Amino acid sequence: MNLTHIDESNNPKMVDVSNKNDTLRIATASGVIKISKEAFWAVLEKRAKKGPVLQTAVIAAIMGAKKTSDLIPMCHPLMISSVKIDIKELPNLPGFKLYATVTLKGKTGVEMEALTAVSIGLLTIYDMVKAIDKSMEIGPILLEEKSGGKSGDFKRR
Amino acid sequence: MNLTHIDESNNPKMVDVSNKNDTLRIATASGVIKISKEAFWAVLEKRAKKGPVLQTAVIAAIMGAKKTSDLIPMCHPLMISSVKIDIKELPNLPGFKLYATVTLKGKTGVEMEALTAVSIGLLTIYDMVKAIDKSMEIGPILLEEKSGGKSGDFKRR
Amino acid sequence: MNLTHIDESNNPKMVDVSNKNDTLRIATASGVIKISKEAFWAVLEKRAKKGPVLQTAVIAAIMGAKKTSDLIPMCHPLMISSVKIDIKELPNLPGFKLYATVTLKGKTGVEMEALTAVSIGLLTIYDMVKAIDKSMEIGPILLEEKSGGKSGDFKRR
Amino acid sequence: MNLTHIDESNNPKMVDVSNKNDTLRIATASGVIKISKEAFWAVLEKRAKKGPVLQTAVIAAIMGAKKTSDLIPMCHPLMISSVKIDIKELPNLPGFKLYATVTLKGKTGVEMEALTAVSIGLLTIYDMVKAIDKSMEIGPILLEEKSGGKSGDFKRR
Amino acid sequence: MNLTHIDESNNPKMVDVSNKNDTLRIATASGVIKISKEAFWAVLEKRAKKGPVLQTAVIAAIMGAKKTSDLIPMCHPLMISSVKIDIKELPNLPGFKLYATVTLKGKTGVEMEALTAVSIGLLTIYDMVKAIDKSMEIGPILLEEKSGGKSGDFKRR
Amino acid sequence: MNLTHIDESNNPKMVDVSNKNDTLRIATASGVIKISKEAFWAVLEKRAKKGPVLQTAVIAAIMGAKKTSDLIPMCHPLMISSVKIDIKELPNLPGFKLYATVTLKGKTGVEMEALTAVSIGLLTIYDMVKAIDKSMEIGPILLEEKSGGKSGDFKRR
Repeated sequence: MNLTHIDESNNPKMVDVSNKNDTLRIATASGVIKISKEAFWAVLEKRAKKGPVLQTAVIAAIMGAKKTSDLIPMCHPLMISSVKIDIKELPNLPGFKLYATVTLKGKTGVEMEALTAVSIGLLTIYDMVKAIDKSMEIGPILLEEKSGGKSGDFKRR
Repeated sequence: MNLTHIDESNNPKMVDVSNKNDTLRIATASGVIKISKEAFWAVLEKRAKKGPVLQTAVIAAIMGAKKTSDLIPMCHPLMISSVKIDIKELPNLPGFKLYATVTLKGKTGVEMEALTAVSIGLLTIYDMVKAIDKSMEIGPILLEEKSGGKSGDFKRR
Repeated sequence: MNLTHIDESNNPKMVDVSNKNDTLRIATASGVIKISKEAFWAVLEKRAKKGPVLQTAVIAAIMGAKKTSDLIPMCHPLMISSVKIDIKELPNLPGFKLYATVTLKGKTGVEMEALTAVSIGLLTIYDMVKAIDKSMEIGPILLEEKSGGKSGDFKRR
Repeated sequence: MNLTHIDESNNPKMVDVSNKNDTLRIATASGVIKISKEAFWAVLEKRAKKGPVLQTAVIAAIMGAKKTSDLIPMCHPLMISSVKIDIKELPNLPGFKLYATVTLKGKTGVEMEALTAVSIGLLTIYDMVKAIDKSMEIGPILLEEKSGGKSGDFKRR
Repeated sequence: MNLTHIDESNNPKMVDVSNKNDTLRIATASGVIKISKEAFWAVLEKRAKKGPVLQTAVIAAIMGAKKTSDLIPMCHPLMISSVKIDIKELPNLPGFKLYATVTLKGKTGVEMEALTAVSIGLLTIYDMVKAIDKSMEIGPILLEEKSGGKSGDFKRR
Repeated sequence: MNLTHIDESNNPKMVDVSNKNDTLRIATASGVIKISKEAFWAVLEKRAKKGPVLQTAVIAAIMGAKKTSDLIPMCHPLMISSVKIDIKELPNLPGFKLYATVTLKGKTGVEMEALTAVSIGLLTIYDMVKAIDKSMEIGPILLEEKSGGKSGDFKRR
């Protein structure tokens, strides 16, 4: 099995997509942050009013998706068509699960954009509650599903 | 318990650190990526020669640390003093564990910089092997230890 | 009337434009900076030679247009086709009026790019003369006209 | 009167601040956006629940403050100590007034950071309600007060 | 002969490409860095193992190509299709020659992207060996060849 | 001789400067662009009026200096105290020589900032005259002198 991002001299390269067609591509990723009960309720109490922690995470995730090619060295710059973020409360963990769905009419898949959005969104929650809880854990972050493109659709079982 | 990043109108804010002293602050974070056996050996085989996947991850992690305040809305811009990345092979998982240690002589902790470096480094590995394996999982990402600053030292048990 | 950038959970979202057609879109915005007589003439005297204040503003405005999606959270990244800046002297105000016209062959309008260019251009003039005058006022900044796209053309009366 | 940002060859330059002392500097800027009654109430209705438009503006303003030296060509990179944003409803205008207060322990003033935060925050409101109202006007944007530094304090009358 | 980037008021402008067709465009640039014998062998010795200096340069060059429109004021933002970097050892100089080939299916040429990649790659080598040698020289940096677009192909003799 | 930017596992690292003192550091770099006679006079003719090509280069060089740590992977983020650019006409070459002097009160040298400023400034000239001349050559780019810091002063002979 070959690594597509490595050239014949063993150097990393940005894969050539100039011959690919512009098709609709959609990817959804998700990620969890596990936090203490105290931190969980501090976030939710605020949310009852205006929800600044979760809403900051939503916005950071959207902006993070747009920065993917600036952060991940071999990613192509893309004109993302949409980003949508959802955050589910997990009171039993306790914690939060953040979903990002990214859409593109373009030449390459957007799973990295969805995964980057999830990562930045979860780091933002971490940042805003770290004064209360330093033992938080981020993960698992994973691809839920993707469609469009030559390599076929994917849906996590 | 109060969220330090929320002001009296329930708006997010960047915490005021102007009265804090410049002290030495160090933070180490870690994170794991779990990948298939095929992907694991594809990365290692390349590593035996020049290791472009893991080395791209190291560089992306260092550059990611420098972008923290650009990505995480309430983070302060910081003049990071050093970033050091280590990647440990986990042949039994299989996967990789990436460590980031960030140092600063400054007014605020650098755990977000360490955690961001880890996240970007792991996303970079994901990007470069995703053609082989779409079921990879990133996490747990967590703070290993931190020292310096008024809130005291932290070491994960 | 509905806010297009808010989803059903009341979260901000980046509007989906993947089904829109690539059409020619043009937007012109303008903005005024009102400055003291002393500052006005200091700028113009320099302009008589090489005009570094106004020319720095022109360049900053063009570069600002390219950063729009990085600054405005819900804006799409766009491959702007052109940016053109004009600065008119207003000796009676006194002050300057900066116009930005942005063109795109693409899926979404460019009024935010034109308005961002104007804002950054005016802030640049402010920065370079603020040692002389601290009472400057920026505004009004507004959309002059736009064409292209489904929502129809607009021309300020 | 001399323009501080122009050198002896009439080129723009970044002023040398290496000999200045690190002192506490605070600047507050403000700016108004005038919008239609329909747009005003659409924003407020959402605010009653979670306020995504105004909260996106708050976050964009804070992140914008951190980008000042990237946007305004002659501005120094600064390690901002804090940013605080307030938005006041102006039901009679109708519209909103956004305030930004920036703090720095450093070698140069932060009025440009405050003014940039205000500009980006107002552009964000504009972006999110522009589907309802295309005649909005941004301005006046101005410096309310500043303290710290050799040039003395300033307070708008 | 006219400068295409200057408008009728003698202001710089971003050239309008909205009427151009999306065609395949390829550009290759190259650049040399001349370093001392000691520095040359320090780099190569490391390369025999994992090559961190040259590989960091490869990655920085690829990421630099993606930042071209952020760095060069009148350059258009582009969705680069691929970037490929090669580094040739020049033991007699001694030094290294770095090649960058950039591909785009789009409206404008990519020679600036190739030249920027080369420049950033060479600066990265400089940075990593400057503790050993402060007399290094970068250059000549030049366009090797380009194809695609209305202005015709170019190949350096 | 050891490469300072490589750690014991042969990974690139950002050198730790947390124990260094804040001292005044100054670096001057220079670089040449060799262009055709036609291009040279096209630039100068414009310069006689307002000089948009050279002034755009000056501004791009200053802004480029501020982006150094974003472009060169192992460079530290720095709060540059000043940047000054000079461009000398070389009618006999013909071409231009661009000088950048960067000043910092800080923990690490600024030669990379000066060299990056020079590189970006020269690339900007290239971009704006490339429609007239495709055979331009950039280089040599080199460090003229530096002072401050533990490693001692340097002056090119």
